[in-house]
Amino acid sequence: MNHRTPAATIGVVGGGQLGRMIGEAAGPLGVEVVVSDPTPDCPAAPVVRDQIVGDFDDEDAIRELAERADVLTFEIELADPDAMARVGEATDTPVHPDPDTLRTIQDKLVQNRALADGDVPVPEFRRVDDADDLRAAGEDLGWPLMLKAREGGYDGRGNRPVEGPKKAEAALAEIGGAALAEELIDFEREVAVMGVVGDSERRAYPVTETIHREEILRESVTPARTDEAVRSRAREVAFDVLELLEGRGVYGIELFETREGGILVNEIAPRPHNSGHWTIEGTVCSQFEQHLRAVLGWPLGSTELRSPAVTANLLGDIDSPEPVELAGSEAILEAAAASLHWYGKREARPLRKMGHVTLVDSVGDEANADGDEGRDTLLSHARELVDATTFE
Amino acid sequence: MNHRTPAATIGVVGGGQLGRMIGEAAGPLGVEVVVSDPTPDCPAAPVVRDQIVGDFDDEDAIRELAERADVLTFEIELADPDAMARVGEATDTPVHPDPDTLRTIQDKLVQNRALADGDVPVPEFRRVDDADDLRAAGEDLGWPLMLKAREGGYDGRGNRPVEGPKKAEAALAEIGGAALAEELIDFEREVAVMGVVGDSERRAYPVTETIHREEILRESVTPARTDEAVRSRAREVAFDVLELLEGRGVYGIELFETREGGILVNEIAPRPHNSGHWTIEGTVCSQFEQHLRAVLGWPLGSTELRSPAVTANLLGDIDSPEPVELAGSEAILEAAAASLHWYGKREARPLRKMGHVTLVDSVGDEANADGDEGRDTLLSHARELVDATTFE
Repeated sequence: MNHRTPAATIGVVGGGQLGRMIGEAAGPLGVEVVVSDPTPDCPAAPVVRDQIVGDFDDEDAIRELAERADVLTFEIELADPDAMARVGEATDTPVHPDPDTLRTIQDKLVQNRALADGDVPVPEFRRVDDADDLRAAGEDLGWPLMLKAREGGYDGRGNRPVEGPKKAEAALAEIGGAALAEELIDFEREVAVMGVVGDSERRAYPVTETIHREEILRESVTPARTDEAVRSRAREVAFDVLELLEGRGVYGIELFETREGGILVNEIAPRPHNSGHWTIEGTVCSQFEQHLRAVLGWPLGSTELRSPAVTANLLGDIDSPEPVELAGSEAILEAAAASLHWYGKREARPLRKMGHVTLVDSVGDEANADGDEGRDTLLSHARELVDATTFE
Repeated sequence: MNHRTPAATIGVVGGGQLGRMIGEAAGPLGVEVVVSDPTPDCPAAPVVRDQIVGDFDDEDAIRELAERADVLTFEIELADPDAMARVGEATDTPVHPDPDTLRTIQDKLVQNRALADGDVPVPEFRRVDDADDLRAAGEDLGWPLMLKAREGGYDGRGNRPVEGPKKAEAALAEIGGAALAEELIDFEREVAVMGVVGDSERRAYPVTETIHREEILRESVTPARTDEAVRSRAREVAFDVLELLEGRGVYGIELFETREGGILVNEIAPRPHNSGHWTIEGTVCSQFEQHLRAVLGWPLGSTELRSPAVTANLLGDIDSPEPVELAGSEAILEAAAASLHWYGKREARPLRKMGHVTLVDSVGDEANADGDEGRDTLLSHARELVDATTFE
């Protein structure tokens, strides 16, 4: 292959932190990025070639993007698969991942069915259109169960445990639409695998342990502190998932490790994912560079672990429409093993992802952070750094 | 300290590959970059907030830069120190490194005198204004000697060995201006140290071995394959140099290791330098992030080695005003341990720096690249990858 200037131009629907980090990965490759996003001066804007202001389903904006790009992709599930498919066809621009894959993943019921049909292990689930369906699901799957909105949920929004049949109406009203019920998994831990589908091969990164509180990812630890057999099973399942997906790109595969050491698929994201942010420092080829390589049909990069890594999110802790400031960032900057990632958002909301910090082993205080114990230390250190910050 | 959006805006005079890599490092920190450069759509343009088109001494352009920036810096010695000083004062914008430092470094005679006055070891040198001076210098320092243009030389341009007194006139005509003569050092190897001056401290990266051919840096190997005592002496000298420099920022300190294991300073660059590109992958905080931290007065980052690293330059091998392409880049993309850096230049010239490749140990084929022998292997591998490419 030949490398030119620009090496390629990628059009990305969405310009949040994922679009920003795609842009940051594009620079060294000589790839240029144009994003479309409804928020003027979105997080990606300062680091990419250009932003087109437009909603995620604004077909004119997507067309403008396509006319400037060699490949169209998206960094948010709210991207409109129909609009992308139409624009891709009309402008003869490849769209990756395939809009069909996005369509499947957008509806959690359709997603679960596709996985189950492909013999991928998922929690037991039932379609729920009304309270009767929900009560029937409870009879089958046992109470409590997990009620999930079929569409539009993310970061735990749209997910709600339901205690018993009496709560059926209230729970459905809260979810506010078509839903599915899942057996509530009493998991040992949550793990995730970032997978990638390239032109002629599939690869997967090492298994990451994901730590959630209030349904939001707080920290990730890689490699996951679990048995090698579990990690191996998680990667097997991830490869099975990748086989079912149409179109090239990086996929985030969120998994439950059950009490018995089994693996079930929780959810799939058809894009780089928070549980893969550690790859920026923890591998030679990050999930963002990998996504660019994949959608372009370039050779995939190595998914091999370079160092154990722990990532902790900087989540908004106040509701502020005013420009916010993070106090206490100097401790992060001073920590030898830490890399700060600030997403360039102006307004905070409670639990809004404002940035993250990744610590790697082998440097500074983390010089001897080997094995499970070493990762415990990395995790404590990352938590200390994040806990010492506040939004003002 | 408090982190906001943007965390800061840096104005950079110059938007070549160094400005581009400063821009790439700024994204994760939440720092925005505006560059000024005479070439419209310069290499930095696609990855930074904005480019102002203007010559390196265009005071209006520098003023526009200053009005948008919290701190002014430069990535090229051709920046005009007088214009930067005047604009900095008029707009109350700090300039780092200090324009005085730039002024000193721009004139190699003044640079050598400042180093010698500060008890930093440099090759013996003489001021040369005409052929008589040059012949007298040869009498003192011995033939052959190295003739250097006092101003405007870089990448070996403006340096010329002179065989003997008969060549004096021709050599001076070629240099074409005020010069200095230096004793020709029969060095064991060339090494370099990237140093950084922060708000209240100085740090230095591990010693890098720099391999030149035709006066152009081809490869760097870190840590340098030399004795620990030599490396330690090189860092000592680097710290002595940093003490003499006014203003915060990253400095590239190029050194000779003599046959006797001594260290002499060859040249100083008041900016990130090609011999520090390895830090992007080889340390947690690259020279580019470090430069941003330093000029902003933020805490400095770690300069600790994360992995041994070898960098090889992708140099233009044809003279082409037409947009060029690099053939053979797929081998670089396929190598597990390699990171490609493409600078986004459209036209090639022989020996023009078009990009570079860095290989780190501990992954892929480089899994066991420990010790001197490991670095030999990394270096051969990097050379193979670069040698397999051609510009078309």
